[in-house]
Amino acid sequence: MTSFLAALASSFPPGQLATDQLQLAAHAADQGPVLEHYLPVAVVFAERVEDVQAVMRLASEHAVSVVVRGAGTGVSGGAHATEGCVVLSLERMNRILEIHSEDEIARVEPGVVNADLNAAVAEYGLMYAPDPASYRTSTIGGNIATNAGGLRCAKYGVTRESVLALDVVLADGTLIHTGHRTFKGVAGYDLTGLFVGSEGTLGIVVGATVRLRYLPTAVETIAAFFPEFTTAAAGVLAVGKARVQPAIMELLDGNTLVQLDEEQGSDLRSRGGALLLIQTDGFAARTEAEIIRRELSALGGTITTEDHEEAVRLVELRRHSRGAEVDDDFRVGEDGAVPRSQLVHYIAELQRIAAVHGVGLKVVAHAGDGNLHPTFWVGAGEAGKVPALNAALDESIDVGLALGGTITGEHGVGQYKVRWLPREQREEVLELQRRIKALFDPQALLNPGKALPEAIDA
Amino acid sequence: MTSFLAALASSFPPGQLATDQLQLAAHAADQGPVLEHYLPVAVVFAERVEDVQAVMRLASEHAVSVVVRGAGTGVSGGAHATEGCVVLSLERMNRILEIHSEDEIARVEPGVVNADLNAAVAEYGLMYAPDPASYRTSTIGGNIATNAGGLRCAKYGVTRESVLALDVVLADGTLIHTGHRTFKGVAGYDLTGLFVGSEGTLGIVVGATVRLRYLPTAVETIAAFFPEFTTAAAGVLAVGKARVQPAIMELLDGNTLVQLDEEQGSDLRSRGGALLLIQTDGFAARTEAEIIRRELSALGGTITTEDHEEAVRLVELRRHSRGAEVDDDFRVGEDGAVPRSQLVHYIAELQRIAAVHGVGLKVVAHAGDGNLHPTFWVGAGEAGKVPALNAALDESIDVGLALGGTITGEHGVGQYKVRWLPREQREEVLELQRRIKALFDPQALLNPGKALPEAIDA
Repeated sequence: MTSFLAALASSFPPGQLATDQLQLAAHAADQGPVLEHYLPVAVVFAERVEDVQAVMRLASEHAVSVVVRGAGTGVSGGAHATEGCVVLSLERMNRILEIHSEDEIARVEPGVVNADLNAAVAEYGLMYAPDPASYRTSTIGGNIATNAGGLRCAKYGVTRESVLALDVVLADGTLIHTGHRTFKGVAGYDLTGLFVGSEGTLGIVVGATVRLRYLPTAVETIAAFFPEFTTAAAGVLAVGKARVQPAIMELLDGNTLVQLDEEQGSDLRSRGGALLLIQTDGFAARTEAEIIRRELSALGGTITTEDHEEAVRLVELRRHSRGAEVDDDFRVGEDGAVPRSQLVHYIAELQRIAAVHGVGLKVVAHAGDGNLHPTFWVGAGEAGKVPALNAALDESIDVGLALGGTITGEHGVGQYKVRWLPREQREEVLELQRRIKALFDPQALLNPGKALPEAIDA
Repeated sequence: MTSFLAALASSFPPGQLATDQLQLAAHAADQGPVLEHYLPVAVVFAERVEDVQAVMRLASEHAVSVVVRGAGTGVSGGAHATEGCVVLSLERMNRILEIHSEDEIARVEPGVVNADLNAAVAEYGLMYAPDPASYRTSTIGGNIATNAGGLRCAKYGVTRESVLALDVVLADGTLIHTGHRTFKGVAGYDLTGLFVGSEGTLGIVVGATVRLRYLPTAVETIAAFFPEFTTAAAGVLAVGKARVQPAIMELLDGNTLVQLDEEQGSDLRSRGGALLLIQTDGFAARTEAEIIRRELSALGGTITTEDHEEAVRLVELRRHSRGAEVDDDFRVGEDGAVPRSQLVHYIAELQRIAAVHGVGLKVVAHAGDGNLHPTFWVGAGEAGKVPALNAALDESIDVGLALGGTITGEHGVGQYKVRWLPREQREEVLELQRRIKALFDPQALLNPGKALPEAIDA
């Protein structure tokens, strides 16, 4: 390790290399629950593609593992430091290299913040559609690593659908280019799609060509308060039955409203026990909103047609409904998705599970695509209740899978959910993925212990 | 080979196994140009997943290569028989297993015809969006193998965006399941995306869960005739600049109009030198159509607001603009895509190339996503002109790539375009794909010689 650190020090100026405790600690974890805490041996701040290649060449030579990191806003521990690793930060590679209005694409470095790209392309009447709740701080590279979703994906698709081409540094330092600048292209296997969502375990994304969409001319927001969460969830299906595709369809339960009120001084909880927040956009925004209001009123929803300012405020509140909280031993946010028809049933099950295990529960959901973010908690510091919390988490995973769901809709497996993956995927599918991992990263240097469980006999 | 055929005969009843010359010849090629003609040694008609597994187990044991086939409507030779292969037809696996209206998904066997699925889900107000021109005859399995596009993909995405989960039989006969029933899901690597578009070289798709979209409430069609093809192409950019996303945006040149007139008795060519055919759909169809008409009129287009019947007829004409022709030595249709801004320039280059080499040219384009289908031809039987035809094809590929394009937007590499792939992708990227292929198919049994070029030293 000493020789590796010496080699780093001779390759990078002090401003790009940190080994002090403060910086190591600051780059040791993302916002996900920490199972085992490690400090990296060093943090390298890459400023160009060649820096990333240099780190990988040294890491390969010295057999040191590399954890790549963007803004560190992930919530599954995908960027947690592992034992003896170097953390490679791509935050400084934050240049928008090109915006081409007629081609409707942008080329960016991985450290570009999602909101910065959106601000830059808005001048051209364009938008970058994937919008995780962290869009103000998270990077495009991190979004790609997790195949991030967000609020708008029911209509516009997840990150994968907006990534056309990638520049990727492989484990041995080789730089490759995958994909195409065109919207369509089927030459060769879909390597681009394989890298998207691979959580830094197959290669390091150092550049991306992304497809842009048209910034909607009009946006309408509908806030519908319901007495019960389950009735609000039924509203999601009613909108679907009317064959209207909203851009955003978010469901917030009573406990989430209470928390928002406490943090923001709002009065949401007094207006209902659950909030269904819907945005339509585009040339038919108003027509679609009228249909939705009619459907939700018929279900007993109290519809507020928010004015624009209030609408923006509510959506922003929803985006920040995780608040300042970071998951820990006493509070864990989940990310399962279930088929849309199971939403109502799954939410009832979550409430049952929380009651049985005596733990707290609040739920927000990207309801349009059946992706739920339940948060289970016990009192901070109540170590005796942690087993109940974990039992509730495990049971919620099993029930979601039994309903045809997945353990992670958009946050990624990271480190925290590795233990649940074998509940969803059979051993032969896991083994196929391990072999792909070994093909791309034979020394197992890239983000070890993330995304995939070790082989049973390992 | 005799022992393999004997093993097949003891595994399948005569009705599922053909070795007569008529059937072998009928299953020897798809609609792509044939570089080397081979008859398969046998054709097996699978009726269930177990049949596919049985074929792969026998093929592995006897080291016989397997060419999988749906309806045989591919145009890149992806389903051409290769020397000593067995052709495995999935046409009889044509059951729609489930349509779930609330989940907005369908589960199908691979032999289901695209149009049959669309007819079945239309009753629920849903549609399966990918619509290759062959949708009346091509199968979902074939669409998945090529990651087929179609007319509607600028708005609704290509096949990849509609495939949620797959059942795949691997080379050794193992059955695996990839993906999820939910719209979103990021557990593990994107194996589903890796199989989509892999042209039967990594595994055999025996089942698919597909996402359905809402059948549009309204459709508006705009037919705009322009004197010149290049001005019509400029219209595509004008619509984009107005930030309107049509469902369909097809461009037909004068020679295509002449051919349609001859085959269909229409009078299209007399109305202009190029036709831009645009459909908007959904609740804003009329508003969007009005904007488009205004933009195209300003560019000098002659706008015909077609009545519904005429609109359907024009779109159907476009879908069949390949006519009954099948590519051969004297006529080859291409499938490149270029960035949208290069459309006008590329079309002018195609016209220049055709003139220089003295070959015929007609062009249709899915203009919304820059995907062009130029057809170059010489007189049938004029063997002396074939070198000029091939020179024109090669040059059109090189020019498209120089403009930032790809050699295939939606038809796939198949057998015919293998020689062009190294012009688009660098050796290290090809080698990575060869290693993935070797991982999935170590005996190289699945569709050999397709999708990827052999290694240079092979």
